[in-house]
Amino acid sequence: MKHTPLVEKLIQSFTCLPGVGPRSAQRMAYALLERGRDDGRGLAAALNAAMDGVKQCRRCRNYAEQELCPVCQDPRRDPGLVCIVASPADVLAVEQSAEYRGHYFVLMGELSPLDGVGPRELGLDVLEARLNEGQIQELILATGTTVEGEATAHYVLDLAREAGVSVTRIAQGVPMGGDLEFVDGATLAQALRGRRPFSS
Amino acid sequence: MKHTPLVEKLIQSFTCLPGVGPRSAQRMAYALLERGRDDGRGLAAALNAAMDGVKQCRRCRNYAEQELCPVCQDPRRDPGLVCIVASPADVLAVEQSAEYRGHYFVLMGELSPLDGVGPRELGLDVLEARLNEGQIQELILATGTTVEGEATAHYVLDLAREAGVSVTRIAQGVPMGGDLEFVDGATLAQALRGRRPFSS
Repeated sequence: MKHTPLVEKLIQSFTCLPGVGPRSAQRMAYALLERGRDDGRGLAAALNAAMDGVKQCRRCRNYAEQELCPVCQDPRRDPGLVCIVASPADVLAVEQSAEYRGHYFVLMGELSPLDGVGPRELGLDVLEARLNEGQIQELILATGTTVEGEATAHYVLDLAREAGVSVTRIAQGVPMGGDLEFVDGATLAQALRGRRPFSS
Repeated sequence: MKHTPLVEKLIQSFTCLPGVGPRSAQRMAYALLERGRDDGRGLAAALNAAMDGVKQCRRCRNYAEQELCPVCQDPRRDPGLVCIVASPADVLAVEQSAEYRGHYFVLMGELSPLDGVGPRELGLDVLEARLNEGQIQELILATGTTVEGEATAHYVLDLAREAGVSVTRIAQGVPMGGDLEFVDGATLAQALRGRRPFSS
């Protein structure tokens, strides 16, 4: 004997989560069965509610439960400033910096023609329409530094130039609080190229 | 803004799983929303099915989806041999040794009067009745080596003696393939006390 069918199915289902292998999945299943059946039912309900109820914001493509996401609804946010990110998790990272008070545009991916991800899949036609509305003054690029991220950044740059909107990119350099000896060469090269005047 | 309410609820629900903190929970929620909504619904269905459908075997208290668990239903298993373990996960560990062909009795805990866990909560009245049926020839104790495990082992020993059933305990000593220098003192002391004649 190994597991009964329902337990086996539960363990196998847990392995769809990131960072969860067969052993962790087994531990999760047994923990819920032994002392958390109500927690298990609660998790199932939360999963169903989120999988069905979380949609995309009509304006910025971030997660939303209504037509517009909380950021796009917020009148205190500056609609002239739009930060371009690859995923909703990136929005969260920028929000946690507590530095940014503009809007976002979430691509939900990066350009990768070989995988069938073109401008349409990333909603770049929606972005183009918004750029042509004339409300946006500055686009801030915060896409990744991979090949796909760079390709996406350049595509967005072209769109913005056509619409006459200025484009900036978040600074690349050494991270705060990091020891220089642990910074990789490519980052350090970028930091040297991007050096700025220093004054007290 | 942080998360929308449904996403917040999902993240919070994930933290009920063992080994899942707020950051892993967030990663799980976003991974399912971004590229695994069907997996998420599947996990919810598996959770509901298991939480409601997994019951306890009438004879051995292990998990079962029918009256009896697969082990108790199996005619090739020796009903004269019963291994006492604390949890269903322990049954799995013993099964993986591929050494044991007897039955089990799963306590679903260990004696801990201060927490309100007495003999009744562990089904020891059920075990007593089975011992008095006369079919069991040997009880093998495989409870933990904590204070609660020891107390439980001694309680079961008394029950078995009254019924005239012989009791053994799984060997305690150094683990297979382990380097002696990494074995703790208490285990080594136990291994020395339990030394056995050696012959080629």
